[in-house]
Amino acid sequence: MAAYDDLMAFVRVTEALGQVAGRTGWDQEVMMPDGAAEQRAEEMAALEQVLHARRCDPRVGDWLAQAEAADAVQAAQLREIRRSYDRATKVPSALAEALARTTSKAQGVWAKARGAQDVAAFLPILSEVVQLRREEAAALGGAVAYDALLDDYEPGLTGAEISNLFDAMRPRLVALRDEVLGRPIGPELKGHFDPAIQMALAEEVALAFGYDLSRGRIDKAVHPFSSGSGQDVRITTRTAVDDPFNCIYSTIHEVGHACYEQNISDDFLLTPLGSGASMGVHESQSRIYENQLGRSRAFTGWLYGRMVDRFGTLEGIADEGAFYRAVNRVHNGYIRTEADEVQYNLHVMLRFDLERALFSGQLEVSDLEAAWNERFKADFGYAVDKPSNGVLQDVHWSVGLFGYFPTYTLGNVYAGCLHDALRKDLPDLDQQLANGDLKPATGWLREKVQRFGSQKPAQQTIEDAIGGAVSSGPLLDYLDAKFTA
Amino acid sequence: MAAYDDLMAFVRVTEALGQVAGRTGWDQEVMMPDGAAEQRAEEMAALEQVLHARRCDPRVGDWLAQAEAADAVQAAQLREIRRSYDRATKVPSALAEALARTTSKAQGVWAKARGAQDVAAFLPILSEVVQLRREEAAALGGAVAYDALLDDYEPGLTGAEISNLFDAMRPRLVALRDEVLGRPIGPELKGHFDPAIQMALAEEVALAFGYDLSRGRIDKAVHPFSSGSGQDVRITTRTAVDDPFNCIYSTIHEVGHACYEQNISDDFLLTPLGSGASMGVHESQSRIYENQLGRSRAFTGWLYGRMVDRFGTLEGIADEGAFYRAVNRVHNGYIRTEADEVQYNLHVMLRFDLERALFSGQLEVSDLEAAWNERFKADFGYAVDKPSNGVLQDVHWSVGLFGYFPTYTLGNVYAGCLHDALRKDLPDLDQQLANGDLKPATGWLREKVQRFGSQKPAQQTIEDAIGGAVSSGPLLDYLDAKFTA
Repeated sequence: MAAYDDLMAFVRVTEALGQVAGRTGWDQEVMMPDGAAEQRAEEMAALEQVLHARRCDPRVGDWLAQAEAADAVQAAQLREIRRSYDRATKVPSALAEALARTTSKAQGVWAKARGAQDVAAFLPILSEVVQLRREEAAALGGAVAYDALLDDYEPGLTGAEISNLFDAMRPRLVALRDEVLGRPIGPELKGHFDPAIQMALAEEVALAFGYDLSRGRIDKAVHPFSSGSGQDVRITTRTAVDDPFNCIYSTIHEVGHACYEQNISDDFLLTPLGSGASMGVHESQSRIYENQLGRSRAFTGWLYGRMVDRFGTLEGIADEGAFYRAVNRVHNGYIRTEADEVQYNLHVMLRFDLERALFSGQLEVSDLEAAWNERFKADFGYAVDKPSNGVLQDVHWSVGLFGYFPTYTLGNVYAGCLHDALRKDLPDLDQQLANGDLKPATGWLREKVQRFGSQKPAQQTIEDAIGGAVSSGPLLDYLDAKFTA
Repeated sequence: MAAYDDLMAFVRVTEALGQVAGRTGWDQEVMMPDGAAEQRAEEMAALEQVLHARRCDPRVGDWLAQAEAADAVQAAQLREIRRSYDRATKVPSALAEALARTTSKAQGVWAKARGAQDVAAFLPILSEVVQLRREEAAALGGAVAYDALLDDYEPGLTGAEISNLFDAMRPRLVALRDEVLGRPIGPELKGHFDPAIQMALAEEVALAFGYDLSRGRIDKAVHPFSSGSGQDVRITTRTAVDDPFNCIYSTIHEVGHACYEQNISDDFLLTPLGSGASMGVHESQSRIYENQLGRSRAFTGWLYGRMVDRFGTLEGIADEGAFYRAVNRVHNGYIRTEADEVQYNLHVMLRFDLERALFSGQLEVSDLEAAWNERFKADFGYAVDKPSNGVLQDVHWSVGLFGYFPTYTLGNVYAGCLHDALRKDLPDLDQQLANGDLKPATGWLREKVQRFGSQKPAQQTIEDAIGGAVSSGPLLDYLDAKFTA
């Protein structure tokens, strides 16, 4: 037992420092004065240096060799510590440093290239990033480079498995897109919406979804995000005077992530089990909160009342039905983050196939733009008009996040499965949502998914919750039913 | 050169982590949700563990043994690193941990005892804290225990030297107090002052004093403080609807601390020279900003106009002269932090003499309250009415801060000297202050004091700035002239 206890005491300090690093990142986006960027970069590098040294500390290896688990929870702790230790020790520190340095630089180059619509300016450093990630994948081992990267975000799944899943979904999504866009599109909300009232409504909605403000806070940031685990889980949102939906649905999305972290068992506080099981499972929580619950006909009926109470009559929106169609408006667009439920996954699949081809050697960085534009035309039916609407739109690749995109659609697939099981267990769900009562639904998610944190592997977390295998069927059936109604 | 460069690279990371720890403390007071206290305590302990390990890392000792300074700045860096290393390695870690644990507990006991007016409930743990600090002083070495503690806050001065300085000041201060309180006291500002307007005025005043918001920010906290060095120096202030002076003068005080940190040479960023030289020198900056400049007849004339612009006619304040007397109102009171310029130092001297007697063995903890009350009556002319107005009023002793109090009055003495020299160098100062133009004065302080950071020892920093020896004469002459006018 001594080795296990010593190991956990050491890891607990590492986890605490990890929380500090996360909150320092939050501060950078939300609170930091403009002139502090240079110093902050050194502070973050110092924290990363300490964290990296602790994650591959030889004592961790010794303790892991000796420690024995007394129960399933301890076994799960050791599994997660071993995963982290193996990854940290396999990657040479010179490579880790080169990656940190190059991606930091590449992000700036990308932002400039996007502003100038200049793909050629971005490709050389993108090639460097891809090459360094290939070397990292080689150091991590395994037959397929892309799978080694994917393992950081969605352990337990291979690129081939995801490819099979996505390829089977794509034709139905393309067909649904064609059908929905052939019909009259929903009304558009118009008017001027006081940002302070938007924030007050966002807080009300966050509380309705079960977000605990005694262990969190809501601030504004350019890009909404959720941050932290355990007792201090913060979210950010944003306001645009002409688009209150952006504020409200960004908030609900981040509340989904935050409630997952807040609802993990207290027993796992500051341990490797005390955060979400994978990016995909995390995204399943944000997506089911935002879409299956938040954009449902029943819940939008309640939200319509809250909007009218706070903003008065909504211009162009006659009633609950029109409000529901406005919330779920489907229309053409280039940008993934602005896409509706019907088209979102097509954006993700495009990126997944391209990045997988990059790492298998089937696609060169120099051909990336052409491949993007060709695929976009095939799936969406019209041509990309400029690089900032195409291959330069996302920050991900510049910072080396290859293997991350598919977790967005995996999250949607998981959310579809969970929504199906939730409806079976809660026959009165629509009545509850219509009353703005999310307690039964969020309680179910807490009980079935969230409280376990990383105790179970990601796919098992979902399988246990739904009592069966993961499949894209429930998501596709839900989308068909909702958008062809 | 290699040893010096290696040492500095290591220390730079430690300094960066120290900045993170400081900002985590800021977050705790300003941003942290209530329910995160337990987790935050673990995070702070983790940071302290890492910082302590780095400060007494044996490699630092090796580098110090080999490193050679190429110039005066490098010599100063080595001096400060050696100081920190010596202190960190002399105190056994078991003692350091006992101190951290006991003071953390004692702070809670103190707060409860103060609320209950129960001195007896506080004394046992205070005895423990005193005993642990005695052991720490013994570990640090030197002939006099109190001097070893003092060295943490005001290196270069002994308790006996400070005692000589203070004993010579006290009769003049007591006499001035008697004289001023025998006269009619100034008018009192009355009314309701919108906290949002107070904060807007506070920001305007902070900017007038040269605070750089591109490298800082202003928030509210229960107890105002300044935090951070280099590119990210934040201040907090507070608002009370019936007392805008509290907000404005707390802000100016903290701006004094913050400008000191912001104006240190960029060359010293994230090095041991990149923060203030001592607590006393730090306090000299906050005090001269707040008192000699901020409460001057000339500056309050400008401030009166800004107040009337923002709040309209001030009830009970007919003109600039009445406003000046309201800002500098002298009246009886028990509380150090609420004291005016005339009486503040008497509060400090009382504490200094008592804590020095505690560490010399001339006073027992059990006799502390009686000694406090006796001394208070002698200096202030009336009796302490309850412990929260007496021996239980300050948090300092509960958290082990023995040797800290005298730096407040040292700061006032330094400020008196600096003010004297400043007036000689800037004959038009009053005209500038009357226009709200603080640039010449704050520029002088930046040039003479602030830019040097910790490059010179504390007393030398002041001596070089004033071109002579430190003395209490200028402060006492200034107080006499101001308050008997």
